[in-house]
Amino acid sequence: MSSPAPSPGSTGAPGPTVGVDVGGTNVRAAVVGADGSVAAEVRAARPTDWGAAIETVADLVRQLRKEGPEVPAVGVGVAGLVDDDGVLRYAPNIAGVLGAPVRSELEARLDVPVVVDNDANAAAWGEAVHGAARGAAHALVITLGTGIGGGIIAGGRVYEGAHGFAGEVGHFQVDRHGPRCACGDFGHWEARASGRALGRMGRERAAGGRLPAVLDRAGGELEAITGAMVGDAALDGDADALDVIRDYAAEVAVGFAGLANILDPERIVVSGGLVRLGEVLFGPLRAAFARHLEASELRPRIEVVAAELGEWAGVIGAAAMARELVPPG
Amino acid sequence: MSSPAPSPGSTGAPGPTVGVDVGGTNVRAAVVGADGSVAAEVRAARPTDWGAAIETVADLVRQLRKEGPEVPAVGVGVAGLVDDDGVLRYAPNIAGVLGAPVRSELEARLDVPVVVDNDANAAAWGEAVHGAARGAAHALVITLGTGIGGGIIAGGRVYEGAHGFAGEVGHFQVDRHGPRCACGDFGHWEARASGRALGRMGRERAAGGRLPAVLDRAGGELEAITGAMVGDAALDGDADALDVIRDYAAEVAVGFAGLANILDPERIVVSGGLVRLGEVLFGPLRAAFARHLEASELRPRIEVVAAELGEWAGVIGAAAMARELVPPG
Repeated sequence: MSSPAPSPGSTGAPGPTVGVDVGGTNVRAAVVGADGSVAAEVRAARPTDWGAAIETVADLVRQLRKEGPEVPAVGVGVAGLVDDDGVLRYAPNIAGVLGAPVRSELEARLDVPVVVDNDANAAAWGEAVHGAARGAAHALVITLGTGIGGGIIAGGRVYEGAHGFAGEVGHFQVDRHGPRCACGDFGHWEARASGRALGRMGRERAAGGRLPAVLDRAGGELEAITGAMVGDAALDGDADALDVIRDYAAEVAVGFAGLANILDPERIVVSGGLVRLGEVLFGPLRAAFARHLEASELRPRIEVVAAELGEWAGVIGAAAMARELVPPG
Repeated sequence: MSSPAPSPGSTGAPGPTVGVDVGGTNVRAAVVGADGSVAAEVRAARPTDWGAAIETVADLVRQLRKEGPEVPAVGVGVAGLVDDDGVLRYAPNIAGVLGAPVRSELEARLDVPVVVDNDANAAAWGEAVHGAARGAAHALVITLGTGIGGGIIAGGRVYEGAHGFAGEVGHFQVDRHGPRCACGDFGHWEARASGRALGRMGRERAAGGRLPAVLDRAGGELEAITGAMVGDAALDGDADALDVIRDYAAEVAVGFAGLANILDPERIVVSGGLVRLGEVLFGPLRAAFARHLEASELRPRIEVVAAELGEWAGVIGAAAMARELVPPG
């Protein structure tokens, strides 16, 4: 992040700002009010080349400005390691991005202050200011998606670490014999507990003939089984699918317990598509978390709750970061 | 910790304070100057009963006061989970300790302000103010001993988390198939990378006939092999022992990488008896750390250095915490 993180509850500028979320396949931008409301939204496919992606971001912001109010600042969340100067140091899924000065290139094009941060940090900040982490000085916001993204709220601010790279919570080893992670190392939590990992668990179970209802949903094609299909079957009460979800929840809980032992949050907010499973996921998740947390019966309960902003968290959080760039009044 | 953590470099009271380290077998207390110098020291065996241990701590402090200057505040580090009110919630190795109000009991006996924190947090603060973490706003201080203790320096302060329990860095799972940890869960980093784990690695290697020089040091008794013996043999240049140290360094590095991905420190300070191995340990440790850290070639280097205060870190850090209780001047 390229500026000091704001405190939850502080509002900065009273008017709207723009938030941008540069995702794996789409770029999404919106005008967001100081109350977190989304007033206008545009989106475009994300070019695979980084130079073109910067142009896409700038074009979307210009489009919002043309149709709506003048906005005094822009916040951008990007998947990858963003340093304190708003330079994208590393992004596993974008070509030609090493050392891309995202902030300065956007400021030159847009002529307003820009703040750039990791997308998961932006989403965490959104939940901290306007969502399920509201009021918690110490919280973790963990997104279970294709990978595992995370943001650490520490003392009411996004914890950025020494260089802006903190919060890569998916990348600690939980199983040395585990599958290779997107980052190249082995057995990381991300490789065992992401939404994609749930799909893999479903396929493994179905290959053993133990997930017939889900295999039906996939038209009988084993390789077509996704985590979403397992979730749908579990929501319909299929006992086999519920069993997979329980095993998956245990994988998630191992990581939660490790992070809680290290960081002692008061709340863990879970985001990503699997949140729709509700108690089907959260019930076994809370139980397994308590089993793995050190001395869990002797310490204040750490809440495990669902995110409130859904797929909007990144945009809303980036806009909230931008709001802090604007002097109030 | 029962008061806000101070910032490194701040000195608080200009005069000496008392620091106490309640360890596994001994209680040690000393008068420590504002420059970190240790002026007087006393110690005693730690009673296994918690009530008696509190009396021992109070007696040692009274003894120091009788022989030396009047001290305005006392800091105490204890192995276990200490909450924000100075209550010891959980200590795996002390009997009858659940919910012991350490701070209030000591303040009643000593009639000066007392601060109580986890021993590893105290040691981390000692290194931050007077030792190898000096000048680093974001650092980890990791003690490789019987277990693995750790303290997180974040923004120039000890990071305590929501309830004072942060920094239990030994207790995240790195190997689901790994040995049982002292806390009851399985495959934690502590169980694989502590000094005790080095002894286990040595015994396993010797059982396979591949560590003859170390087996000699143990008088031919396999079960007598300790981590220290492996270290001694490695320092003498024994190739087999050096190989064990390399494997051990890789275990340590896996945890360092996970913590660095989560917390992005600028420096990791290693303490504990194994520090005496110098480059025999630190060489392979730095190399393995770089291999496991996400995008390590694209980010600023995270230093891995030896602690400077040795076994005094806890006492010196606790005294430095106490110094902050005293108004300057």
